[in-house]
Amino acid sequence: MRLCTLKNGTRDGALAVVHPDGTRLVRARAVAHTLQAALDDWDRAEPELQAIHTALADGDLPSEPIDFSQVMAPLPRAYEWVDGSAYINHIILVRKARGAEPPKTLLTDPLVYQGGSSDMLGPREPIDLVNPEWGLDFEAEVGVILGDVPRGTSAADAGKYVRLFVILNDVTLRNLVPAELEKGFGFFGSKPATAFAPFAVTPDELGGAYRDGRVHLPLRSTLNGKLVGDPEAGPEMHFSFFDLMAHVTKTRRFGAGTILGSGTVSNQDRARGISCLAEQRMIEIIESGKPSTPFMKAGDTISIEMKDAAGRNVFGTIEQTVRSVG
Amino acid sequence: MRLCTLKNGTRDGALAVVHPDGTRLVRARAVAHTLQAALDDWDRAEPELQAIHTALADGDLPSEPIDFSQVMAPLPRAYEWVDGSAYINHIILVRKARGAEPPKTLLTDPLVYQGGSSDMLGPREPIDLVNPEWGLDFEAEVGVILGDVPRGTSAADAGKYVRLFVILNDVTLRNLVPAELEKGFGFFGSKPATAFAPFAVTPDELGGAYRDGRVHLPLRSTLNGKLVGDPEAGPEMHFSFFDLMAHVTKTRRFGAGTILGSGTVSNQDRARGISCLAEQRMIEIIESGKPSTPFMKAGDTISIEMKDAAGRNVFGTIEQTVRSVG
Repeated sequence: MRLCTLKNGTRDGALAVVHPDGTRLVRARAVAHTLQAALDDWDRAEPELQAIHTALADGDLPSEPIDFSQVMAPLPRAYEWVDGSAYINHIILVRKARGAEPPKTLLTDPLVYQGGSSDMLGPREPIDLVNPEWGLDFEAEVGVILGDVPRGTSAADAGKYVRLFVILNDVTLRNLVPAELEKGFGFFGSKPATAFAPFAVTPDELGGAYRDGRVHLPLRSTLNGKLVGDPEAGPEMHFSFFDLMAHVTKTRRFGAGTILGSGTVSNQDRARGISCLAEQRMIEIIESGKPSTPFMKAGDTISIEMKDAAGRNVFGTIEQTVRSVG
Repeated sequence: MRLCTLKNGTRDGALAVVHPDGTRLVRARAVAHTLQAALDDWDRAEPELQAIHTALADGDLPSEPIDFSQVMAPLPRAYEWVDGSAYINHIILVRKARGAEPPKTLLTDPLVYQGGSSDMLGPREPIDLVNPEWGLDFEAEVGVILGDVPRGTSAADAGKYVRLFVILNDVTLRNLVPAELEKGFGFFGSKPATAFAPFAVTPDELGGAYRDGRVHLPLRSTLNGKLVGDPEAGPEMHFSFFDLMAHVTKTRRFGAGTILGSGTVSNQDRARGISCLAEQRMIEIIESGKPSTPFMKAGDTISIEMKDAAGRNVFGTIEQTVRSVG
């Protein structure tokens, strides 16, 4: 089952179930007005939404075409957005890029940061460029939307709290990061609104590609029409989503609708390209002494999507254009 | 006007307007089911809530006694919880306590961190002690609940986005902080659920004590029945709430219901005591070479409240007891 959230003049939008063909949908108001409301009451809502999905697949329900300009983030605002950094190759490259050492516990203690969650962007919303000097970058990631997760959840138990998968663009103002992290309190202003692909999908939609708490599919990033990366999201995710969940629940519990990100998907094999420009620039520095790829500028378009083995565009496409604002 | 949220079996509780005497309330369902719903539609809801407040004051409405064990956090879950650290004395003491230098930009660039917001505790909820080695501490703070705040808000304009004031206990696992900050991504596991006093109050409730974006009243912390601090929250708040709002909106906008904290209230005058045990322990180290005050243990009770010049308990009282959990 794939779900999406439509603009309807409210802050949280309207929940809809996507037709298996990915081009049509039916509003799910009778089950829940919003995705958050469905997540709050998942045991009831999930089978009712699945029944709509089945009826759509069987051709038993009228559906409407999807206008992707009217699709919001699955959760246009969320109660928690926690982003991991589970791809070791990404950590090593970006820390090198800003002259910082990887943490000593790189391979044993996951890195996560708490993100802002009152302002989540839909798949076609522009990325506002306030100041080009801030070094606007994209970061292509996989994420999970969780149910209520108790404190002290083990990696072995974590799977049962995974409700939905998403892909996302964790927009980063790269040149603001070093001074901000230097202050010791983590990211804040360097992480403006995150954007999400149209569809949030249940684990069964991923079939065998979802195993060991990882999504074993390539995540494709296309910048201005040119494919810049299609790294495999599975094998090099050093900490699985289950590991990340065990880590974050060591001292805290999380409410339904918490979004947990994988961090920028990254492969050691340079032929797989990049999921953020900071990596590209660091590779250029290593190879030729200086970066030649600029950060994003007004008019640039970043597209992010993930296709399964059958070529189906699982989450729909993030396609955001950078817009200069005053 | 003072508002509170009552347990009613839902995740967000029921919005109520508090009688001016602070002991009674009336449910405000006809205006908005929850505080978040009122904040989402404040221009409509606020005058209707004020009308209830006026009718209560005039004795024109029946009211029910407040059972504080049934009071939740004003926002039991929030879309954003941003905590500043605006009291320089606190920053200097706690950094000294963990052997870290204050940031070079201490006086010019506010410190803020993004907190978790899916799990906010009510004023009488216990603080769970999972592992005494983690160094459980309280932090008494003032906070504001905001309306929609645009990116690029100036300090001069910030006041109009302040909806409500709160006081809170930013519970901290002190011994987890150094290793966590060492990793470079800020607080995460070291900041379990934050607790809030019963009442969220409109700015007019503070009268002349609210000026220059600061609350000029002492914040009283009582540990196991003994007053341990009553520092003035106004004069030494180096960055006002308006300054903090200008800082956080440099690159981001915030949705209605965002909670912004002051950081631990702290005065240079040692006679005013402390608003967290880390400060007390650092003072002991400075004075005698080693800390003598332990962190919180099972059975300890921390009370936090703020009285105005007339002796009125403005926000009601946070009164939390530490509970050992497995």
